[in-house]
Amino acid sequence: MPHQTECKVGFIGLGRMGAAMARNILKAGFPLTVYNRSAAKTQPFLDAGAAGAATPAAAAVGADVVVTSLMDDQSVLAAVEGGEGILEQLRPGAVHVGTTTISPRCAATLAALHRTHGSDYVAAPVVGRPDLAEAGRLTSFVAGDAGAIARAHPVCSAYSQAVIPVGSTPAVANSLKLAVNYIIYAVVDLMGQVYAFGEKSGIDPQHLGMVMQTMFGHPGLQEYAARIRDRRFDDVGFDLLGELKDVQLILDASTEVRAPVPFAGVVRDKLLTAVAQGLGAKDCSAVYEITRMNAGLK
Amino acid sequence: MPHQTECKVGFIGLGRMGAAMARNILKAGFPLTVYNRSAAKTQPFLDAGAAGAATPAAAAVGADVVVTSLMDDQSVLAAVEGGEGILEQLRPGAVHVGTTTISPRCAATLAALHRTHGSDYVAAPVVGRPDLAEAGRLTSFVAGDAGAIARAHPVCSAYSQAVIPVGSTPAVANSLKLAVNYIIYAVVDLMGQVYAFGEKSGIDPQHLGMVMQTMFGHPGLQEYAARIRDRRFDDVGFDLLGELKDVQLILDASTEVRAPVPFAGVVRDKLLTAVAQGLGAKDCSAVYEITRMNAGLK
Amino acid sequence: MPHQTECKVGFIGLGRMGAAMARNILKAGFPLTVYNRSAAKTQPFLDAGAAGAATPAAAAVGADVVVTSLMDDQSVLAAVEGGEGILEQLRPGAVHVGTTTISPRCAATLAALHRTHGSDYVAAPVVGRPDLAEAGRLTSFVAGDAGAIARAHPVCSAYSQAVIPVGSTPAVANSLKLAVNYIIYAVVDLMGQVYAFGEKSGIDPQHLGMVMQTMFGHPGLQEYAARIRDRRFDDVGFDLLGELKDVQLILDASTEVRAPVPFAGVVRDKLLTAVAQGLGAKDCSAVYEITRMNAGLK
Amino acid sequence: MPHQTECKVGFIGLGRMGAAMARNILKAGFPLTVYNRSAAKTQPFLDAGAAGAATPAAAAVGADVVVTSLMDDQSVLAAVEGGEGILEQLRPGAVHVGTTTISPRCAATLAALHRTHGSDYVAAPVVGRPDLAEAGRLTSFVAGDAGAIARAHPVCSAYSQAVIPVGSTPAVANSLKLAVNYIIYAVVDLMGQVYAFGEKSGIDPQHLGMVMQTMFGHPGLQEYAARIRDRRFDDVGFDLLGELKDVQLILDASTEVRAPVPFAGVVRDKLLTAVAQGLGAKDCSAVYEITRMNAGLK
Repeated sequence: MPHQTECKVGFIGLGRMGAAMARNILKAGFPLTVYNRSAAKTQPFLDAGAAGAATPAAAAVGADVVVTSLMDDQSVLAAVEGGEGILEQLRPGAVHVGTTTISPRCAATLAALHRTHGSDYVAAPVVGRPDLAEAGRLTSFVAGDAGAIARAHPVCSAYSQAVIPVGSTPAVANSLKLAVNYIIYAVVDLMGQVYAFGEKSGIDPQHLGMVMQTMFGHPGLQEYAARIRDRRFDDVGFDLLGELKDVQLILDASTEVRAPVPFAGVVRDKLLTAVAQGLGAKDCSAVYEITRMNAGLK
Repeated sequence: MPHQTECKVGFIGLGRMGAAMARNILKAGFPLTVYNRSAAKTQPFLDAGAAGAATPAAAAVGADVVVTSLMDDQSVLAAVEGGEGILEQLRPGAVHVGTTTISPRCAATLAALHRTHGSDYVAAPVVGRPDLAEAGRLTSFVAGDAGAIARAHPVCSAYSQAVIPVGSTPAVANSLKLAVNYIIYAVVDLMGQVYAFGEKSGIDPQHLGMVMQTMFGHPGLQEYAARIRDRRFDDVGFDLLGELKDVQLILDASTEVRAPVPFAGVVRDKLLTAVAQGLGAKDCSAVYEITRMNAGLK
Repeated sequence: MPHQTECKVGFIGLGRMGAAMARNILKAGFPLTVYNRSAAKTQPFLDAGAAGAATPAAAAVGADVVVTSLMDDQSVLAAVEGGEGILEQLRPGAVHVGTTTISPRCAATLAALHRTHGSDYVAAPVVGRPDLAEAGRLTSFVAGDAGAIARAHPVCSAYSQAVIPVGSTPAVANSLKLAVNYIIYAVVDLMGQVYAFGEKSGIDPQHLGMVMQTMFGHPGLQEYAARIRDRRFDDVGFDLLGELKDVQLILDASTEVRAPVPFAGVVRDKLLTAVAQGLGAKDCSAVYEITRMNAGLK
Repeated sequence: MPHQTECKVGFIGLGRMGAAMARNILKAGFPLTVYNRSAAKTQPFLDAGAAGAATPAAAAVGADVVVTSLMDDQSVLAAVEGGEGILEQLRPGAVHVGTTTISPRCAATLAALHRTHGSDYVAAPVVGRPDLAEAGRLTSFVAGDAGAIARAHPVCSAYSQAVIPVGSTPAVANSLKLAVNYIIYAVVDLMGQVYAFGEKSGIDPQHLGMVMQTMFGHPGLQEYAARIRDRRFDDVGFDLLGELKDVQLILDASTEVRAPVPFAGVVRDKLLTAVAQGLGAKDCSAVYEITRMNAGLK
């Protein structure tokens, strides 16, 4: 593994999550080349000492590690394949660190592409909202070749408080990430159901809040409980349309492996209603507004 | 409030939970009279210094506090009303502490009966499995007249680590208890869904266990996660038929207040299947066996 | 079996359905005694030649057949038991024809009460809305002792186009009636889902109407399809609160026999929302308004 | 429109449905060129006077109408695009008749491809099982340019008892077809739920069959009711894996247009279980076996 300042990093995708992660990589002292579809977002990075690239491929030239932080299966595949994709420029032994929440099936496809090319794919989906990304305190589940994971580790550590290896099959990290998201979305919906039931039953929200705090002590779940209690959905950590995409991914993955996840169907239908009612750009916890509507609460 | 040894307690219902609670009341030094439908269960209490009663009414004679730990709405009403019910014998200002998980509607009926009679009803449903009851570490949600709650407090404290007042309307404590149970049952089912999805996706159960531990840190939920992971359903804390009863109660209460709780319908259907498959007497976490069956797992 | 004009009939419950059925019994020439909780509704029957009764018991004096058309389990039991109930006055061999949609469990209770008393219980739930009752064109499922069914047959025929014997166990007729209602409510909800999906997909409602007509050719289902298409919910055949009661009955019956009916849970939750939104008194097909709301349709 | 014998037809895809449709086109006297991925299936057509083609493109050379009967979005797009796709060889004004159940989104893509090329796309999904295809009695929903529909009509009529125009936007015909399939799958599942509930409630299956017949009079639904009643799932009209694909399509389409179809999620989960239990190749009505399992029926 090269000394930190010698490990050259390419970074593809400077959205809210990606930009925060890339800033931490830069802060940690890695030589960094960034690419973003709309070039405007690269300027602050150039100002801070990073190099810019006109294509994903250009960001991969000479890189030891290339990190992608994109939208979905399609956008990741588009950044890898074809004349402008990173694969063409990736040297043998270079590592592609995929942080996007994509389907396990797509992760398997990416792993096969890299294997053929002689580079390595490390699935490294992250858990945490943008504020945690900014603080360098995400959790990364990493899966792939052990040597590749070791080479990617310092880079992932730049934006993660924990880098947890979960096996040698990349897709498994994505399955685990989907499981985590499924738990979050199901519990967030459940919290909303309980708050609406409580309000209509005359339960003091303070008492319900206390119960929730005891039962769902994890800070991430607590933050959602607070947003729901206060109906505070404009401070968008992760938007509702993003959740809908993720819920589709878990449903598709459950179809792949033939393992029903019945709460997901219920949540999906409520998300559709939320989007149909114009809440798509609100924080994902805003699904509670549909739960309220369903209970006849104003 | 009488000095502890002067507060005479009647106790109705010596099932697994009730017997453990009554033992703690006795240990705390309260003069105790016990009643149970099948008299055999009273013998150990008589041996330990309690008095026995042939009817609920007899257990209420001269009592300051009467605790009921029964099965359902019907059994509680039967122990209160009629010639053999406690109401007839309860003196003015005596407190009936109802610890059973009953419907909020039934709690309102009980409160009205006591108001008419001149006695007090304190709804005091408990959270915790039999081992916690044995250890005197249950959580009690209490609701009713403040003075009555104060008089009942020392008795509840004998078997509870926390006695939490949640208002002056008894039914609200029962609504809150149903909300707690709903969260438990929904999360337990969710855990099982995630374990089955994980197993079919090749996720190491250790990794899933770690994720669950982080997200559902509460000891009670952790215990369920462990039972599910190990498929250990014969050490019955609370049986599946009992859960089915509780899920019906939350569904009925949600009908009462017009607030849908859609995961409850999903859980109910799986519980029916579990009972139809002969799992009714297993621990309630055994609903996971149906989740496995649904995923084609042996 | 007495000649028609010699078969004396008591009739309990002159609601929309009951009044129409009783009118047909009177028209068919049976000597009729009517009882209704609010006496005002009996006047038109007295004017038409019927006798009036001050209690259910009084309507049963000397009757060969007593028909009940009431609200639910509780109201039927109340009309049967106690000092004012029909049982006390029913002579040996008299037949109680229960037309209300009650639980199979309650039907079994009624059958046992009559067996003990020496009278007969024929479960005879009816299918059809008030206009069919008025036209004497209901469908009756009858179950009970064969001789009792034979004695009740002419009376049931007065308001039914078909009287279908379905066995000797009364509760089975009620189970079958619940199955019919379950099909209706599930299909009505399904129709609404398809209309909303169609509207948002640009399908011409005419084409959808045609498809529905082909697939659900039965006049009763067609009438619902038309109400949904035209959003015509003020001409109330059967109201939404009544449907909610029925859906609870099918859910309870499915719990009794351990056979999940998962669409019923979905429909139940939408009915709760409909009632919470103030649609309880509309025609039951108005659940479509919730389906539209869920799709973001105005 | 060319005289029938002058309208040259290409046919892509000789599966169970496609072969039956192509046979009817041949019988009706159209000059026919067939293509199938595995060439073995073309031999009977060559013997009967059709020409064979080595690629979809070759089957399109000189054709007035090309009919595709394939598996899914991917297979249809693969037969249209690229060097071996029909588009390259289709002459201006030639019509592509797409009979596969594909997503409305894919239909829109196909329409755009043809518009650019100068040919026409007519969405023409068919309703009916293989035996109806064989008998030339399918129902075709056709949507697209009116002139193109007119040119395709004689070909569609060769295998259809009804060719129903449903507008000028091709995708709408596919949305309507998905709506029809959704109704079928939901009603088939509902029938199974009612049969299982009936069996456990002691209802005579004859009586239930009669009720079903009255309520779901359509021959197609009747056939499903009979298969369910007799548990006859080996005579495969349409297999369970095919239904799973279709249910995914309706779910995806409902996501597209933001209109929840909640029964579909329930059906999807049961289909996953059915496939996980090894029933994927059985007739789609075999989902009833899962309903039975859920009710504890052998």
